[in-house]
Amino acid sequence: MNQPKVYLEGLVNLASEAFQFLKSTTIAERAAFMHAVADKIELLGQELLDTAHCETALPLPRLTGEKARTIGQWRSYANAVASGIYTEARIDLADPEKGKSDIRKLSTGIGPVVVFGASNFPFAFSTAGGDTASAIGAGCSVIVKGHPAHPKTSTIMADAITATVKDFGWPEGVFAHFLGNNVEGTDIMVGAYLTAHPAVKAVGFTGSYRGGKALFDIANQREEPIPVFAEMGSVNPVFAFTNVLNERAETLAKEYATSLTMGVGQFCTNPGVFIGVKGDGLDRFKKALEIEIFSIVPATMLNPGIYTAFEKNKTALSTQGGVAVLSESATESTEGQGRPKVVMTSAKSFIANPMLSEEVFGPFGVVVEAEDYEEVLVIAQQLKGQLTITLAATKEDVRAHEDIFNVVKDKAGRLLFNGMPTGVEVVYAMQHGGPFPSCTDPRFTSVGPDAVKRFVRPLAFQNWPDEFLPAELKNDNKLGITRMVDGVSTTTRI
Amino acid sequence: MNQPKVYLEGLVNLASEAFQFLKSTTIAERAAFMHAVADKIELLGQELLDTAHCETALPLPRLTGEKARTIGQWRSYANAVASGIYTEARIDLADPEKGKSDIRKLSTGIGPVVVFGASNFPFAFSTAGGDTASAIGAGCSVIVKGHPAHPKTSTIMADAITATVKDFGWPEGVFAHFLGNNVEGTDIMVGAYLTAHPAVKAVGFTGSYRGGKALFDIANQREEPIPVFAEMGSVNPVFAFTNVLNERAETLAKEYATSLTMGVGQFCTNPGVFIGVKGDGLDRFKKALEIEIFSIVPATMLNPGIYTAFEKNKTALSTQGGVAVLSESATESTEGQGRPKVVMTSAKSFIANPMLSEEVFGPFGVVVEAEDYEEVLVIAQQLKGQLTITLAATKEDVRAHEDIFNVVKDKAGRLLFNGMPTGVEVVYAMQHGGPFPSCTDPRFTSVGPDAVKRFVRPLAFQNWPDEFLPAELKNDNKLGITRMVDGVSTTTRI
Repeated sequence: MNQPKVYLEGLVNLASEAFQFLKSTTIAERAAFMHAVADKIELLGQELLDTAHCETALPLPRLTGEKARTIGQWRSYANAVASGIYTEARIDLADPEKGKSDIRKLSTGIGPVVVFGASNFPFAFSTAGGDTASAIGAGCSVIVKGHPAHPKTSTIMADAITATVKDFGWPEGVFAHFLGNNVEGTDIMVGAYLTAHPAVKAVGFTGSYRGGKALFDIANQREEPIPVFAEMGSVNPVFAFTNVLNERAETLAKEYATSLTMGVGQFCTNPGVFIGVKGDGLDRFKKALEIEIFSIVPATMLNPGIYTAFEKNKTALSTQGGVAVLSESATESTEGQGRPKVVMTSAKSFIANPMLSEEVFGPFGVVVEAEDYEEVLVIAQQLKGQLTITLAATKEDVRAHEDIFNVVKDKAGRLLFNGMPTGVEVVYAMQHGGPFPSCTDPRFTSVGPDAVKRFVRPLAFQNWPDEFLPAELKNDNKLGITRMVDGVSTTTRI
Repeated sequence: MNQPKVYLEGLVNLASEAFQFLKSTTIAERAAFMHAVADKIELLGQELLDTAHCETALPLPRLTGEKARTIGQWRSYANAVASGIYTEARIDLADPEKGKSDIRKLSTGIGPVVVFGASNFPFAFSTAGGDTASAIGAGCSVIVKGHPAHPKTSTIMADAITATVKDFGWPEGVFAHFLGNNVEGTDIMVGAYLTAHPAVKAVGFTGSYRGGKALFDIANQREEPIPVFAEMGSVNPVFAFTNVLNERAETLAKEYATSLTMGVGQFCTNPGVFIGVKGDGLDRFKKALEIEIFSIVPATMLNPGIYTAFEKNKTALSTQGGVAVLSESATESTEGQGRPKVVMTSAKSFIANPMLSEEVFGPFGVVVEAEDYEEVLVIAQQLKGQLTITLAATKEDVRAHEDIFNVVKDKAGRLLFNGMPTGVEVVYAMQHGGPFPSCTDPRFTSVGPDAVKRFVRPLAFQNWPDEFLPAELKNDNKLGITRMVDGVSTTTRI
C-alpha cells in the first residue's frame, strides 16, 4: 500500500515528462506505436480470455469478439491519426503586400489524460480501450485507473502497452496503469485526486452518472478547469409507431427482448424504455414480449455491486405507483444473476414520475402505453439526453409524426430507424455521446476514430521558421497529409 | 422596462422555435443568409461609423477597418460553412454480410446560443460579430445581449440581421438582440438568467475573466450543463532573447510600444508583459522603450468603466514591492483617457507576486528583468494559459533554449516567432483561444471560420431512409460537399 499522494504524484510527474516527449512525435510515429499495441494484444491468448471470463462472468465468445473489437479500435484509430484527419493542418501563407503573416495551425495533444475504465467492457472500454487509444493517438500521455472489477485483466492489457512503450524506447510515463489497491484511500478519493491534479489536462470516463458527474464537477471547480468526457449511459428509448406494431409486433418483441437482455442488459445502449400507443399492435407486442422475457434465463452479472444495484433499482421502479409487471424470466435467479424483467405503465404515470426514466443497469425494461401520439410527443419533449433513440417506424410514420421526429433529434447522439441500439460499431460515422446526462459534452464521441478529437487542442504558429515547425506543418509535407493551404485542401508541398 | 423573466422567456421561446426551423436548413441556405447579412452591413454607411465612434471613442479609420473585418467574417465563415467542412459528413455504408448497418453522421447546430458581445470591438466581436456569425453558420438561433457600452451601434447591427431574417422569410427567433435597459435587473442577473435557461444550449462570451468565469460556473451548475466558450484575455507575454535584444533593441522597443498602446491598449492580445535577460541589449531596449512610451499621447478609452478599472489596476501594479516606473507618456491624461505606462521589475519579484501577471486592460506593460535563462524558464513554467506568446528570438535561440520553447507550447493558443501579437487575422489557421484562464476551453477558437465548431454537435442516423436524411447525408450529395464514405474522402454521390 502506498500513500496516495506520493504514489499518484509520481505517476503524474512521469506522465508530464512523457507528454513533453510525445509532443515531439509525429502522427506517423504514434500510429506505428498504436499498431504495435494492437500486435501485442493480438498475441495475448487464452490466458487473457480466461482471466476476463473469470473476473467479469462474460462468456468467452463475447470476450473473443471484444478482443477483436479492441484490436480493431487501436488499428482504425491509428490509421485515422496517420491520415492527418485529426491534425487539421491549416496553413495561411504570408502575403507581405496585404500585411498578412504566415500562420500555421495543427491540433496537438491537450496534455496528460486520466482514464477511468468501464466495468462492462473489460477490453474495449477499459485499460487498453478506446479512451486510452484515442488519447495516445492525440499525443497525450495516459494514466489509467484500472477498474476494480477486473484488475487482473487490466494488468495483462496494461503490460502489453507498457511492453510496447519499452520496445519503442519511449519514456515510461507515456502510459501508466494502477489499481485502487496500489494506493490507500477509496476509489472516489483517488479519482478526485487525479482529476484535481494541476498537471492533468483532460479526463475520459465511462460508467455511472454518479461517478461521471462527480469527476465533471471536480474538473470544473479546479483553478484551471479541464474537459471531462464522461459517457454515463442512458435509457435509449424505443418509440414504436402503430404501423410497425401492427405489421410485426411479434418480431419487434423478439428484437426488443434480445437487445434488452443481451449481455445481461449491461450495455450503455440498452433500450430500457419502450413507448407505444395503445391498440391491437401494442397488445400483441406485450403478449409476445411477455413470452420472450419469460423464456430468457438469468445469467451472472459483471460483479456483486452491479447485481445489488440492479436488484435494488429493479425493485424500486417495479413498485412505483401505476407500474405493473408485464413479464419476468420464468427461471429464478441465484445470487449474482440478473433475472430479466419488464414492467408496464401508462404514459401519464411515466410523464409524472421522473424515476421511471432512470437507467436500471441490467435486463430491465419499462413498456409505456400512451393513449395517443400527443402523449408520445410529451414523452419525447420531456426526455433527457440519450446516447440513442430508436424509431420503430415506417416512412408514413415519419411523415405523419414530424413533430415527434423533430423533437427526438435534439435528444440523442444516434437515431436509429428500426433495428435496436445495442451494438455500437467502430466506424467513422459512429456517434457514441449525446446530450447531458448521457454525456458531459455532446460535441464529442467516445467510439469511432473521432474519439481522438476529445484530447486535442489547436496550436497556431505565426511566422515560425520551417525547421522548427512540427513535421505536420513543414513546407515539404513529408507525411503526405491533406492540409488546408490558403483555404484549399491539398496534399502537395509548399 | 420589462419584467426580465417574462421578456427573456419570450426571446428564448422564439429562439427555440427558430432552432427547429434552422435544423431543416442546409449549409447552402445558411451560407446564403450569411452573405446577405454581409451585404446589409456593407450598406450601412457613415451613420454606423459615426454612432460607433461616438459610443466607443474608437477612431473612424479603425472602425472602417473593423467594419470590413466584420463583413469578411460573415463571408469567410459563410464560405466555410457552405464547403461542408464543419458538417463533417461521415457515411459508413451497410454491409449485411458483415452485419454492418448504414450509419451516417453530420455535425448539426447544438441549439439556441446566447452571445455576450465585447466592448472593444463594437462590430467584429459584438452583436454582429464572430460569435453570432459562427452560431448561425452552425445552425443555431442566437440571442445577443448587446454590450451596454455601445447600445446604438449594436441596435443598428441587429437591425441589419433582423432585416435579413425578414427578407429570407425565416422565423423571427433566428436572431434576437436586446439591451440591458430593455429589462429590469443588473447585467449580471440577466446574463445569469439566460445562461441558466434550460432551452439555451451554449454560450459565447468575450470579455473579462470575472464575467466569463461567472457564466462558465453557472453553465456547469445547471441541471444540464452546457458549453461556454468564454474568451477572457491574457497578458500575452513577449520573451525577448539576448541575440535579438543585442541586434535590434531599438526597433523591438518601437514594435513593442506600438503594439502595447495600439487602440489605447484595449486588445485581448495586448502584450502586457515583456521578459528579457539583463545585459546591454535589455538596457538599450529599456532606454528606447522609455523614449517611445514617453512620446505616445493618451487617448480616450472605450468607456468610463474601462478607464476607471485601468487607472485602478495600473496604480495597484505600479505600487507593488520591487516595481519601479520605467516610463510614462509625457502627456498628462484627462478624465477617461488611457495614459501609457510601463513599469519594470525583477524576475524574482514577478515570480513571487502573481498580481504582476494579471491583465491590466489598457496601455500598460511590465518589463521583467531576469538574471539568467533559468529565471526565464521558471517564468515560462509559472505562466497561466495565454491567448498568445511571442518569442523575439533567432534560430540559434530556439536551439539553445529548447526547454523554454517546449514549455511555452503548453501555455498558449498561438505562438509568434518575432512580430507582435496584436492583429488577429481572420483566417483558417488562426487560433484565438488558449489554455485557461485565457479561455474556458482550449479546444476551440473564437476567430477564423473554425469558430463554428464551438456550436455544432455530431448526430448519427442509423439505417435512415434516404428521403428523410439531411441533404448533407443523402446519397445524391446535391450540395457537392466532401464526405468521408467508408473511410475515404470523396465528393461523389453514392
